[in-house]
Amino acid sequence: MIKVEHIGIAVKNIKDSNDIFAKLFGQQPYKRESVASEKVSTSFFQLGDTKIELLEATDEDSPIAKFIAKRGEGIHHIAYKVENIEMEMKRLAEEGFTLLNEKPKKGADNKLVCFLHPKSTNGVLVELCQEITSDV
Amino acid sequence: MIKVEHIGIAVKNIKDSNDIFAKLFGQQPYKRESVASEKVSTSFFQLGDTKIELLEATDEDSPIAKFIAKRGEGIHHIAYKVENIEMEMKRLAEEGFTLLNEKPKKGADNKLVCFLHPKSTNGVLVELCQEITSDV
Repeated sequence: MIKVEHIGIAVKNIKDSNDIFAKLFGQQPYKRESVASEKVSTSFFQLGDTKIELLEATDEDSPIAKFIAKRGEGIHHIAYKVENIEMEMKRLAEEGFTLLNEKPKKGADNKLVCFLHPKSTNGVLVELCQEITSDV
Repeated sequence: MIKVEHIGIAVKNIKDSNDIFAKLFGQQPYKRESVASEKVSTSFFQLGDTKIELLEATDEDSPIAKFIAKRGEGIHHIAYKVENIEMEMKRLAEEGFTLLNEKPKKGADNKLVCFLHPKSTNGVLVELCQEITSDV
């Protein structure tokens, strides 16, 4: 694990929340992006070497909609940057963590990602992410 | 806001959780500290420019004990580093955020801290923290 790549926050209305976090951070989001596979709209704020990602569900079947229905708005996951996601997935599976996908999948912000089940990580939904480079 | 200073995670048993996060991160916590005023034991992991703080309640009256009773183990707060905490508290109060303490208080890791009520920040408990320097 190299660093905290971003922190994901589940919100009901991304326009309203962009305003809230812009006031909090004293800056506007630098990027907005929809991720069809996860059924979310996202926006990103840069804070030092880490990002804050706001996530709004675009479908009631989205994991974010389910999270908000169960727990309300709030922090959804912590994403860690890794050098080699397949090696980290193998290492963590051997350590006893439960991977939520068997192979890396395409996430927001040009990343390959894998999630770990919160049951194996003290209730924290953990995302591993590796930057997609042109030679991958 | 300069950067994400740390992410606080509420745990039931800090020894067990140190083992879990040491496996996850591939490193041991670099510091352990008790904060009597908050009734918590803490441990810290360094990840890039940000820290992960584990928090175990030392009393059933601790905010961490109440959090776990209500929501279970998991991410408790995000702490942002600020240059001048009194100026940021004034700015954020004027922006409509609800401060949980009127004056900065002494937190873990040699910091002056102030919390913002999650109601005003999309369900996210936000901590502001300023390093205590010898001339403060």
